[in-house]
Amino acid sequence: MYGWKDNIRRVRPYIPGEQPELKDMIKLNTNENPYPPAPAVEWILRGYDAEELNRYPDPSATLLVDAIARRYDLRREEVFVGVGSDDVLAMSFMTFFHSNRPLLFPDISYSFYDVWAETFDIPYRKIPLDDHFEIHSEDYAGENGGIIIPNPNAPTGIDAGQEKLEQIIRANPNAVVIIDEAYVDFGAVSLLPLIDRYDNLLVVQTFSKSRALAGSRIGFAMGNPELIRALWDVRNSFNSYTMDRITQKLGAASIEDEEYFQVQLARVVASREWTKKELRRLGFYFPDSRTNFIFARHERLPAIEIFHALKEAGILVRHFALPKIDNYLRISIGTDQQMQDMIRFLDHYLADH
Amino acid sequence: MYGWKDNIRRVRPYIPGEQPELKDMIKLNTNENPYPPAPAVEWILRGYDAEELNRYPDPSATLLVDAIARRYDLRREEVFVGVGSDDVLAMSFMTFFHSNRPLLFPDISYSFYDVWAETFDIPYRKIPLDDHFEIHSEDYAGENGGIIIPNPNAPTGIDAGQEKLEQIIRANPNAVVIIDEAYVDFGAVSLLPLIDRYDNLLVVQTFSKSRALAGSRIGFAMGNPELIRALWDVRNSFNSYTMDRITQKLGAASIEDEEYFQVQLARVVASREWTKKELRRLGFYFPDSRTNFIFARHERLPAIEIFHALKEAGILVRHFALPKIDNYLRISIGTDQQMQDMIRFLDHYLADH
Repeated sequence: MYGWKDNIRRVRPYIPGEQPELKDMIKLNTNENPYPPAPAVEWILRGYDAEELNRYPDPSATLLVDAIARRYDLRREEVFVGVGSDDVLAMSFMTFFHSNRPLLFPDISYSFYDVWAETFDIPYRKIPLDDHFEIHSEDYAGENGGIIIPNPNAPTGIDAGQEKLEQIIRANPNAVVIIDEAYVDFGAVSLLPLIDRYDNLLVVQTFSKSRALAGSRIGFAMGNPELIRALWDVRNSFNSYTMDRITQKLGAASIEDEEYFQVQLARVVASREWTKKELRRLGFYFPDSRTNFIFARHERLPAIEIFHALKEAGILVRHFALPKIDNYLRISIGTDQQMQDMIRFLDHYLADH
Repeated sequence: MYGWKDNIRRVRPYIPGEQPELKDMIKLNTNENPYPPAPAVEWILRGYDAEELNRYPDPSATLLVDAIARRYDLRREEVFVGVGSDDVLAMSFMTFFHSNRPLLFPDISYSFYDVWAETFDIPYRKIPLDDHFEIHSEDYAGENGGIIIPNPNAPTGIDAGQEKLEQIIRANPNAVVIIDEAYVDFGAVSLLPLIDRYDNLLVVQTFSKSRALAGSRIGFAMGNPELIRALWDVRNSFNSYTMDRITQKLGAASIEDEEYFQVQLARVVASREWTKKELRRLGFYFPDSRTNFIFARHERLPAIEIFHALKEAGILVRHFALPKIDNYLRISIGTDQQMQDMIRFLDHYLADH
């Protein structure tokens, strides 16, 4: 005897970072950009014709796809967009890793990868990073049904560099290799120029971090037209109209403001470098970050203790209760003021403990 | 020898209705609402604080969930929201039909059902409607892994009525039965009151039709908390932040304006009834529609011929080149002016052909 409950797909839900709506909290736990999106976003909203919302959006999101293609000097056929890079990545898992061979990814990386693999019944094998959280290309040479690597890696912040990653792509011509570049704009080198050379390379980026539009949900993938076509086919077999009209316009307008983008990036990078210096002074160790967060442990105090002390002081950072990394804190880069407040608190706290 | 192309999931893409952005076209092909959304939608956009878009949205969409719960007199735990009802339905297929027994649905119904079943490797069996496009409850008594029925049905527009559907739900306590009520507000009776009586019933609705927000992508499901919990779990294992900040606010504000909703619905229904009368006069036959479209064939001329003649005249309706229904046109209800223009054209065209 069975019932309807037997037919329910059992999943391991992803636990997102806390999203308190408290205005006086210093929120450094989800790697959001502390600055507002490009000014054009507000202008679009002020002048938006609400009447047109009675019509379905363009399922191909042409306006946005074309704006991204222009920015990265690509053809329209080389760009796919989705509702945040999580959507782009989930669709990519469904599309490209439909195999009985294991998907490979670093054992410390974005925590959604194993969730998707399990949700879509994709076998997978986690490849250990070394003791310095570094990737070694030769570890990705075995038989596989695909590879995904975040670069810079999350939550470590380390940039593996083009050479290592290109070796992996070259060694695996029979598997799609996805480089998840959510944080690349903060100081790493994108592999985008390699998509012409390797037809198995897909580069995924997002508007949520460097473009300060986490609230609007825009992610995108770039690769050869055959990969991109396959993604659109799976997308359209699933839900043809995922990106709403307003988001398409906001995204297109925001990516056109290159000057604002660069100025705002430079501010985040400057705050990060200042924060690194201060954290070092306070006895923290961390791999060199090329992202908008720092992944740090303290020479003396356990991470979880500092995590709770910060939280009590109204400063929210991220702690992962996972093997190998449970003594680290992932601290997102906020405004200068926020970073100064955090350092001032840590200064006093560490003096007393 | 294999290559990365062997690992690509091959799907049958859904072909959405044409979405020309031509302002002078009379667009009666995708069942959109001809009226603008509630006035509050525009106010929200004018006053929206663009700065907050740098933060991730609330993954539980609490503001919107609570607004829907208030409107339908439910608890928060009984409401799930997604990016259009296609998203809600795709998630429901993944969540509830994870079985080796066939999913059952009418052979003439929403054309996405078989696409999803194939995408998620769900076996399915299409149950033939009778010659009048009617559902018979006893046809849904066999062993199955779930049932989904649109009511009113699309593209026929027929309301099966509560009795028949309740028989199906009652006869299948071991399967989740989804009633897809995308068009219910235009004159059918919702099964929502039955969710307290049947724990296997999920009712799905959308903001795209009756609430004139197709451009914003909001769908929702209502059912007992266990069903709803399972949907959120699958959703969160997939993509935690799907509904953007702006859409959550627009949706919540729009559902609160009950008066605008009723007035605008009454206008669509009045135009539909007028159009029925005129189509009858012109020699069209159609099942009685309880939706915002009419599914009609002509006594003399083939549907495809009328379809092309209308298109040439700048009037876009929908034709499905599918068995049993290829001699029908699905005509969405537009404004009075649009319906009058269409009838005037048909009047002349039919006199000459």
